[in-house]
Amino acid sequence: MQHFIPILTLFLFSQVTLAELRGTGDLGVIIEREPAAVQIINTTHNKSLSRISELGDLSHASVVFSRDARYAFIFGRDGGLTKIDLLQDKIVKRIIQAGNSIGGAISQDGTLIAVSNYTPGGVKVFSSETLELVANIPALYGDNQLSKVVGLVDAPGQKFVFSLFDAGEIWVADLKNPTQVKIEKFQGVGKQPYDALLTPDGRYYIAGLFADQGLALLDLWSLEQGVKRILPAYSKQDEKLPVYKMPHLEGWAMAGNLMFIPAIGQHEVLVIEKNTWQLVKRIPVLGQPVFVMARPDGRQVWVNYAFPDNAHLQVIDVKSLDLVKSLNPGKAVLHMEFTPRGENIWVSARDDNRIVVYDTNSFKEIMRLPANKPSGIFFSSRAHKMGL
Amino acid sequence: MQHFIPILTLFLFSQVTLAELRGTGDLGVIIEREPAAVQIINTTHNKSLSRISELGDLSHASVVFSRDARYAFIFGRDGGLTKIDLLQDKIVKRIIQAGNSIGGAISQDGTLIAVSNYTPGGVKVFSSETLELVANIPALYGDNQLSKVVGLVDAPGQKFVFSLFDAGEIWVADLKNPTQVKIEKFQGVGKQPYDALLTPDGRYYIAGLFADQGLALLDLWSLEQGVKRILPAYSKQDEKLPVYKMPHLEGWAMAGNLMFIPAIGQHEVLVIEKNTWQLVKRIPVLGQPVFVMARPDGRQVWVNYAFPDNAHLQVIDVKSLDLVKSLNPGKAVLHMEFTPRGENIWVSARDDNRIVVYDTNSFKEIMRLPANKPSGIFFSSRAHKMGL
Repeated sequence: MQHFIPILTLFLFSQVTLAELRGTGDLGVIIEREPAAVQIINTTHNKSLSRISELGDLSHASVVFSRDARYAFIFGRDGGLTKIDLLQDKIVKRIIQAGNSIGGAISQDGTLIAVSNYTPGGVKVFSSETLELVANIPALYGDNQLSKVVGLVDAPGQKFVFSLFDAGEIWVADLKNPTQVKIEKFQGVGKQPYDALLTPDGRYYIAGLFADQGLALLDLWSLEQGVKRILPAYSKQDEKLPVYKMPHLEGWAMAGNLMFIPAIGQHEVLVIEKNTWQLVKRIPVLGQPVFVMARPDGRQVWVNYAFPDNAHLQVIDVKSLDLVKSLNPGKAVLHMEFTPRGENIWVSARDDNRIVVYDTNSFKEIMRLPANKPSGIFFSSRAHKMGL
Repeated sequence: MQHFIPILTLFLFSQVTLAELRGTGDLGVIIEREPAAVQIINTTHNKSLSRISELGDLSHASVVFSRDARYAFIFGRDGGLTKIDLLQDKIVKRIIQAGNSIGGAISQDGTLIAVSNYTPGGVKVFSSETLELVANIPALYGDNQLSKVVGLVDAPGQKFVFSLFDAGEIWVADLKNPTQVKIEKFQGVGKQPYDALLTPDGRYYIAGLFADQGLALLDLWSLEQGVKRILPAYSKQDEKLPVYKMPHLEGWAMAGNLMFIPAIGQHEVLVIEKNTWQLVKRIPVLGQPVFVMARPDGRQVWVNYAFPDNAHLQVIDVKSLDLVKSLNPGKAVLHMEFTPRGENIWVSARDDNRIVVYDTNSFKEIMRLPANKPSGIFFSSRAHKMGL
């Protein structure tokens, strides 16, 4: 009779699963492009926990996390939206929600997942629990045309903010009631916004303009003031210097009052004073910067580069505004992610098929981890941050 | 024969425990004073998960979290240090490490737990894994005397910073090598530092002075500049206005460039400009402020009060610097904690034996939770923050 007790036990705890007990605060996801998969990793023990495949096209993929840090939502370039359980190392659900998408965000309260789509142009909003569609926001403009949508971020007050590339508009969508989405539209913000960021406090939305001068700035605390143009000298340069890769705006660094942004097509990082939005300094660097990211304490800014300088990393000291270190993690450094309190940084070197982890204090290499054409690295502490 | 499969399975997974699978990003701990216990709660489903008792004297208790957000470390007033497993709802280990202690911190990399003690005066440092003592820092000063230690915080670079109440000193301890602790001492910082805070970026350490004018400021980026005195007018008032409770410095709010601090013994919140450390505004409030806390996006500052006004909460709008809301959660409001992205706030009303949760956008009450004389509320997202 006693043989039946375990069976009974498993039956009674039908919602209980056998799995290694695992906190979710120190987990992360690494995107592998070829073959398309993600690795789930742990940043305390610096190890890989599992690999999950069959995720479609993961070029330019990005990730957000549920507010319990248990689930990762993967946005694929092919319109795939996949919910992964970081505790059971498996896909919970996968849908193809559009033909071509460019990223997503999770709402302040964690209940909604929004995806920005090129085809069809617009934003679709899903339940984070079930991935069922709860709101559809076509990016209609002009003569009933649909615009590509870029620069989608979550914002305080259960809002999403995004830009319409073809329309030159910024929209603020309030989803407190997802069945009655309220949208505030800002038109004529500049030609071809191509990406955007939200400052870490959730206040300023800044869009880059592919075919215009300067940047479009919206203060979410003062929507009535509309969109302003800042940094008029910021733009693609003339034809002399080819732009190998448009910099990512999401990687712009805020450190205290200073904002560090990649100059487009030039070998410079620009330092902006956030209160006035004026240029403070141009820091010469060794290539065209792509990601310019601040360590969580704001004391260092790490920079990676476009081809042909993409085997390098450089570190700016924020106190002196000087370069203090150059590193060579491997070929084609695509992304980097700081551990939540900044003691380490994880770097992907795509063409050397590895992740390299550094101590940010000593700049010593701590370990390497094999990965197949790795690109984005996303840690679960993002669950608690706004504007990602 | 098939009956044996579950038995075999359980045997093979001997390190696997049957427990409800649970992400740890949305958990929290509520201190109950009488009888001394903690509740483990979940902020997604707004519910209590369990209660853990036999924790000694929990008056003035505080909590830090491991970097995987799985374990909570409870610092009791009686010198008790307890490690709790938030996944298995149980005490992992409990030690009495001193006679009288006042709080603790966890190191940047999560390996070390430091506790600041009144008796014997000093800081003890423990392994977060085993709670074994790894370093002892007696707070020696003058003629071989031991000072009470207050205002202990973790700082970037595997450091702890703390103040010596009796000695009038601030110490910066570097624990990169815990067997060879390096200490930098700043003497004559002012009489009787009684509490301190670290700005959220981990740069500025500010101590309140019980028997002196102003505040002691140490820029951790520029230790060579030593400790400066700021806000010379900030002090206990004369005997006309009794001080019912010294405000907590840890609760000071940073919102953008502004710092919101409780005036001592007066019915005011002071607004300071952080770049210059100058007073910008005095905001009249209804009582002597105790905790002055910024919503994570910095748009609101919530204030509770000392007796006899401690049934009230007020909310300051940071854009206008005006009071926008008053709330009455219950008798003896002792503490409050925002959810990680600020959509809700949890408030403890000790003498009404309840926790009240508000929507910070609408100010509507969302729910109440019974609790026995609740005081501190601590959410697991603190695992990823510095200076707590």
